[in-house]
Parts: sequence; C-alpha cells; structure tokens
Amino acid sequence: MPFRRIAVGGPEEAIHPDALKAALAEFISTLIFVFAGEGSGMAFSKLTNDGPNTPAGLIAAAIAHAFALFVAVSVAANISGGHVNPAVTFGAFVGGNITLLRGIIYWIAQCLGSTVACLLLKFATGGMTTSAFSLSSGVSVWNAFIFEIVMTFGLVYTVYATAVDPKKGSLEIIAPIAIGFIVGANILAGGAFDGASMNPAVSFGPALVSWSWKNHWVYWAGPLIGGGLAGLIYEFFFISQSHEQLPTTEE
Amino acid sequence: MPFRRIAVGGPEEAIHPDALKAALAEFISTLIFVFAGEGSGMAFSKLTNDGPNTPAGLIAAAIAHAFALFVAVSVAANISGGHVNPAVTFGAFVGGNITLLRGIIYWIAQCLGSTVACLLLKFATGGMTTSAFSLSSGVSVWNAFIFEIVMTFGLVYTVYATAVDPKKGSLEIIAPIAIGFIVGANILAGGAFDGASMNPAVSFGPALVSWSWKNHWVYWAGPLIGGGLAGLIYEFFFISQSHEQLPTTEE
Amino acid sequence: MPFRRIAVGGPEEAIHPDALKAALAEFISTLIFVFAGEGSGMAFSKLTNDGPNTPAGLIAAAIAHAFALFVAVSVAANISGGHVNPAVTFGAFVGGNITLLRGIIYWIAQCLGSTVACLLLKFATGGMTTSAFSLSSGVSVWNAFIFEIVMTFGLVYTVYATAVDPKKGSLEIIAPIAIGFIVGANILAGGAFDGASMNPAVSFGPALVSWSWKNHWVYWAGPLIGGGLAGLIYEFFFISQSHEQLPTTEE
Amino acid sequence: MPFRRIAVGGPEEAIHPDALKAALAEFISTLIFVFAGEGSGMAFSKLTNDGPNTPAGLIAAAIAHAFALFVAVSVAANISGGHVNPAVTFGAFVGGNITLLRGIIYWIAQCLGSTVACLLLKFATGGMTTSAFSLSSGVSVWNAFIFEIVMTFGLVYTVYATAVDPKKGSLEIIAPIAIGFIVGANILAGGAFDGASMNPAVSFGPALVSWSWKNHWVYWAGPLIGGGLAGLIYEFFFISQSHEQLPTTEE
Repeated sequence: MPFRRIAVGGPEEAIHPDALKAALAEFISTLIFVFAGEGSGMAFSKLTNDGPNTPAGLIAAAIAHAFALFVAVSVAANISGGHVNPAVTFGAFVGGNITLLRGIIYWIAQCLGSTVACLLLKFATGGMTTSAFSLSSGVSVWNAFIFEIVMTFGLVYTVYATAVDPKKGSLEIIAPIAIGFIVGANILAGGAFDGASMNPAVSFGPALVSWSWKNHWVYWAGPLIGGGLAGLIYEFFFISQSHEQLPTTEE
Repeated sequence: MPFRRIAVGGPEEAIHPDALKAALAEFISTLIFVFAGEGSGMAFSKLTNDGPNTPAGLIAAAIAHAFALFVAVSVAANISGGHVNPAVTFGAFVGGNITLLRGIIYWIAQCLGSTVACLLLKFATGGMTTSAFSLSSGVSVWNAFIFEIVMTFGLVYTVYATAVDPKKGSLEIIAPIAIGFIVGANILAGGAFDGASMNPAVSFGPALVSWSWKNHWVYWAGPLIGGGLAGLIYEFFFISQSHEQLPTTEE
Repeated sequence: MPFRRIAVGGPEEAIHPDALKAALAEFISTLIFVFAGEGSGMAFSKLTNDGPNTPAGLIAAAIAHAFALFVAVSVAANISGGHVNPAVTFGAFVGGNITLLRGIIYWIAQCLGSTVACLLLKFATGGMTTSAFSLSSGVSVWNAFIFEIVMTFGLVYTVYATAVDPKKGSLEIIAPIAIGFIVGANILAGGAFDGASMNPAVSFGPALVSWSWKNHWVYWAGPLIGGGLAGLIYEFFFISQSHEQLPTTEE
Repeated sequence: MPFRRIAVGGPEEAIHPDALKAALAEFISTLIFVFAGEGSGMAFSKLTNDGPNTPAGLIAAAIAHAFALFVAVSVAANISGGHVNPAVTFGAFVGGNITLLRGIIYWIAQCLGSTVACLLLKFATGGMTTSAFSLSSGVSVWNAFIFEIVMTFGLVYTVYATAVDPKKGSLEIIAPIAIGFIVGANILAGGAFDGASMNPAVSFGPALVSWSWKNHWVYWAGPLIGGGLAGLIYEFFFISQSHEQLPTTEE
C-alpha cells in the first residue's frame, strides 16, 4: 500500500514514531537511488575521461536509474509509501493523499538522502565532481522546463494509476517496477537534452555538493508542476468521479 | 482486467462517462509512450549529430519503447484496457472483445495522443524534426510489410494470451510487462530494417507533425493485418474451442 | 501451471485436441522467439555491414532473447506449459513430467516454428542469411560443449524451480521472466564464444534455412545433456525427496 | 519465503537433510550466478582482445549480474532462502534470522559454487583467466572500501525490506527481481572503480582460480560491514519496533 490516505494531521504528527520511521525510509531509499544514479554518471566520466555523452552513456544512465528507483520505491513502499521524490510527494499532496506537514518531512529526508549519497560518492571516488544537472548545448531553459513537466507528469501519473488508485488491483504488485521503468524510458529521451531529472531531490544533492546552481530552479519548477498536474488530473477524472458513482468504494 | 467483453453497444455509448474516461486514458497513455519512444530517437540524433543508426541506438530505442509501453499499458489497464495501439484495438474488435464505436473512439484518442506527444517533443527540443518511420536502404516496402505483420502478430497474440484469455490466471499480473517487452525484442530485430512500429498511432503522430507520408500505408496495413490475424487465431483456437468444451467458463 | 504431470499416455494422445493445441502454441511461441532472437543478429549485421561482434552486439542479442523468451514462455504457459525449447521438453521428460509421445510432438512443433521464423526473416530482409550458430575463433567444439551443458543446466534448473516444483508458490508468477532472463544473462557470457544457444530448435531453424550444419551436433548434445541433468538433479534432490517426507503434497 | 526465522540450532542441524538441501541449493545458485557474471567479463575480454573497460562493457556486466542474480535468488528462494552471497547470510545472521552453523554451511557452499563456476569457465574458454576483482587506476583501497560498504548496504537492505520483513506483503513476489536489479544498478556506478562485487563469494572464486589476492580483503570486509549494518538497522528500526507495537504480528 504505497500511499495512505491522510487528509488531516496536526503538528504532533511530526514526532509520531511512524512519521520518523517514514522519514528514515525516505532518506535511505533516496540515498540508495542517488548513489547508483549519480554514480552511473560518474562511472561514465571515469571510463571516458570526462568524454561527451553517447548513446551507450544514456543507456547506462537509464538502466541505473530505472533499476535503482524500482528498488528504492519497493523497499520504502510499506513504510513511507515509497515516494523517493519531492514531486511525487507534491503530487500526493495536491490529490489529498498526504498532509502538508508529513510532505515537508519527506522533502527534507529526500534532499538529505540525496546529499549524503553525493558526499559518499565524492569520498568513494577520491574527490570526483558530483556533476549537477545541466542543459545540453542548444537547449534553452524553457525547453528543459517542458521536458521536466511532461516527463514528471508521466511519472506521477504512473504512481497514481498503479499505487494510489483504489481500483489498482494486482497492478500494485508491479507498481514499483513501473515507477522505476518510466523514469528509465524518459531518460532515454530527455537525458540527451536536460539530464532528465524528474526529481528535485536528485538534482539538489549534486548541486549542493558541487555548489553549482545554474538553472537549478527549472529542476524544481518543472517536476513540481508536472507532478502536481498529474495528481490533480488523475484524482479528478479517475478517482473522485468513480467515488461519486460508487458510494461503496472498493478499497 | 485489460479487456471487457463488450459485443454490442449503441451510439449513446460514445458519450457514456466510461467511454470518455477510457478515451482520456488511451490519449494520456499513448502520449506518455510516444514521448519516450519517439523522444529516444531524437535523443540519439542529438547525441550523434544525426548520425546513422548503430547497435547502441537500437538498444536505446528497444529499451525506451519496452519500458514506456509496459508503463503505458499498466496505467490504462483498469480504465480502458490499456490498448495504446490501434492494431491492438483492431485485434480486440475482430475477436469480438470491443464494439466498433468504442474502437473508433480509441483510435482517435490514440492518434491524438501520439500527435500531441510529437508536438511537445518539437517544442521541448527547440524544433527538432520528429522523424517519421521509414525504410532503411535496401529494404523494400514489401519487406517492411512482412516485418510489420509478423511483429504485430506477436504483439497482439501476447495481448490475447496474457490479458484477454479467460484462462490467463496469474499471467495477468505480468501482462503489461510482456506486452512492452515483446515490442522491445521486436525492435532489436525489425528496427534496423523498417523502424519496427507495430503501432499505427506511433507512426501517425511523427508523420503528421513532420508531414512526411512516404510509405505511411505500410505502417497501418501491416500492423492491422498482423493484429487482426492474431485476434482471429487466438480467439478461434484457444478461446472459442475452450468455451465449447467447458460450458461453465473458469472466469 | 507451465507443466502438467502426465506420466502415462497412449498413441491416441497425439490426436487429442489438447495435444494439437499445445503443439500449435509451441509452434507459435518458438516462431515469435526465434523471429526476434535470430532477427536481432541479422539487425546487427545490417547496421554494421556484417562487422565482427562487439559488446553492444552481445547486449542487443541478450536483451532480444531475454525479452522474447519471457514472452514466448508466458503466452504458451497455460496451453502447452511454455517449453519453447527441446532441451526443456527433454528435461521435463527425464523428470517424468511429460510423456514421450507428447515430447516428440513438442520437438516437431518447436523445430517447425524456428524454421518458419527463419524463412519469414529471409523474406522480410530481402534474402539476408539466417546465420547458423558457430564457434568463435579459438573456441573448440569441446569448449562449446561445456558452455552449452552448463548454461542449459541453469536454464532447465530455473524451469524446474520456478514452474515445475509443487512448492514453487508465488515464484510461478515471475517464472517466465526468470526463464527468459537466465538465457539473457548466459548470452552475455557464452555468446562471445559459441553463440549461446541453450536450445536445439533455436539452432536448427537457422542451420536448415542457411544449410550450414558445421558442429551442429554440439547445439543438440550440449543442451540435451545439460537440460537432462537439471531435470534429474532437481527432481531427485528437491521434488522426490520432499514428496517422500510429505505424503500429502502441497499442490 | 526467502528467509526462515531460525534463532537457535545445534550441531545436528548441519547433517539435517534440510540443511544439506539448502547447501546444495546455495551451491548451484552461486554457480549459475557466477558463471554468467564472471563469464560476461570474460566475454568482454574475448570480444575486445582484453581491451579497457567501456560504458558498453559496464552495461553488459550490469545486465548479466542483474538478470543472473535475480534468477539465482529465485531458484533457491524456497529451499535455502536464496542468499547466494556471504554478505546476505551475514546480514541475516546479525539480524537473528539464521543460526551461526547454518550460516557457515552457506558460506562454504557459496564459495564452492563460485569456485566451480570459475573452473568451468576456465575449461569452457580454453584457459582464459578468470580475472579477480581489482581497483581501477586512481582508486585507493579505501575508496573501494566505501563503495563496497554503501553498495552492499543497499543490497542487504533490499533483501530485508522485500524478503525478510514480516510486513513485506506482495513485495515478496518481486523480491528476487529487486535483489538482482539493485546489484545491476550498483555495478553501473561502482563497476568502473572497484568492479562492484558486493559479494565475497563472487570475489573469492576468481581470486582462487587465478590465484591473485591483491586487496582481496576489501571485497570481504566491505560487503560484510555494509551487509551487517543493513541487517542491524532494518531489524532495529523497521522490524523489532513494529513487533513491540503490534504484539500480534501480521505474518
């Protein structure tokens, strides 16, 4: 049950053992995800002496992120819901599936997990740069903005359809695979243009550790708008209306 | 339950909320699928300065389509049946698993989803061409015709065996993965010869947006014939005959 | 239920509708599998002008075979048990899980499916060679023999553990994926040495259509010995002994 | 049920049929895993004439290990728990999920399976070297130490969350895939630096057969520390505390 429908909650929620456990789970999952994902980019730099990106490099990044996100979502699913992404948490919030306070706790845990992953990578690689997400030559910030909105829309829509929707049925079993693999697929498209983040925490850690914030806002604004849109649209068209028609829900 | 057995239906079906929801789900799923799939080809062009296709390029296309179609089928499965492909809808129609009217609505939604994906890609890449499917040098249109028939036969046969057949059992859980992965496998074969579409909507969007219709008919005729054949053969040999033998179905 | 325990059966079995349906399912599944698998090798030849194999070529072959076999096993699982491989059928036979007569019918259907796939590939590619499996330079036929034995042992052991063993439990759900992926993994090892067939039908079709039988016996002897060993060992150590201990089986 | 909670056990346990069967299962699974994994590295050497590692080589290694470990864990899951890794066994031990004696038996079976796989590879390749894990140029042994700790932490944490935790629910179905894929993802990061073993048995076999023990300790110490930490942390925060709160467990 990756999401719990929690529409209300007070400040005491933050120190509830469940909230702290969920934060720890989000922290560890994001750490695992970013270590493999950002690490795959650093491995490419190591093997090619910082050469330019190639189709093989894009494939490596796509598989690393797809596999690692699938696992990161799985291992947190029963504890925190397996967001591992501030845009997913935001999409859950706008659909009324998480409280504001818990959402903020998740955001902090996710950004912290990403940062610690980048610090560990810096040490483990003997000081290599944890490259921040950036625009390829010829790509404007508005191009990246559209990419991040559309790709994150697809990601959060997938989260809703496979893990939030009460009608999900046996889709729930393969939900973490679907969530990981849509990110892998999107990296094979957007990765050549803007890095294909779809996840503000994934962009935040490398930017902080390498202290390079150029165009950083687009990796927050794009995913949050795309994820929020997906939450609103899925909730309105495919969940709320079903509830109206079916007063006795199937959950 | 990717397919609902709907053998009859009148014109009022088209404005039934369920039909509109299903159309919206097909539209969004096809958009997500084509954005990653067509986008992966544009990413290859970006990284190689429009270089010729290579084994790595074929792998990237195969993984992008396999992963994205798996997800696109998953997220629409409980709403529209997760066709995401006019050839699948046609295969469902010839097997008596969808009405003509609903089939036409699906086709429109799928072609619209593909077109919007290509428009978004055009904007997001700053005006790059959304390349239409075309024949590699030395490949005749009849070669492509056979490729599309055989590959789409495999795809729609997979849809029938894992998602339509009342005897599917637990295969249903991994059905979307199987549907996505047979497309990925076939791209690694046919992709080097005719692009390996297996899906008229996937071919339609790029052709419309780049306005290049050369040999376009083969990307409709091949998949529809292959998909229709699969529907007829599977329905006749593996579903109808079982029903005759087993008057009380197992569903 | 990929395997049915059929320990006895007379000649009338061959014309039983179930046997014919099973044969048709094996034929179609092997056709789908070989079309993508052998086709991926021809695509590599097309893209590289018959260049020598490379790591990217090996990856393409591994993914094409892994994905396509997963699907081929899935779509036949409920009809024929999803063998798609004479070595799997032989392994089932030595473990007492299929009759001799049905096994022979399966072998014919599998070899026929592979041959038709190669004929279709020949037509679809405008006459390209359907390359038979062969030894890389420096690899002896006995090297290949060991490779095929060990790799097919792993494959048939996987079939037994995930699809035959009455204690398989929920492993059954992911059994077709495991069966496909062990072949993909083994291709990444043995593919560079002897092509990594693990499947006499997969070797037979290309050899027949291109009429090249050099060392062909090793692609039958190796897989049959490896598959037979796996059937005997798994049946003896992990199934029979459990049955003795547990007179009321868990099936 | 990949793990059985066995907190006590005497010396007679070692000759219990179940313990011997489990040891045989661990032996065969590790053999299958290492044959494909180490074999994929030798295939790369064969195809590139011992050329330096490339992104395509890293992808091949990642997919071979991910697919083969998924299968190796699956086929042993119901017999031995599917550890296939001394670090997983150690992580299970520190969390109180396996006895010391059974753990030692597993270690021996795993190291033996890896060694036999390497011997078979040596014969099958006509005497090629089964390269031991080693540090890339510019990578210190302490860098490798951090890599192995962090990556094995992620692996054993995944084992705990998807296969040990009584609250795992339907995650159990995809647990072997998750366990295989986190190794694949981590190889795409750490593989370029220290080979990314995460598994002392995987390092032991090649080192023994090629008799090269340089820095070998790091491939034991790193995984055991990372795996032990994961066992302690998961057990303490996510299992023990839940038990205290929920006296009637959900298992």
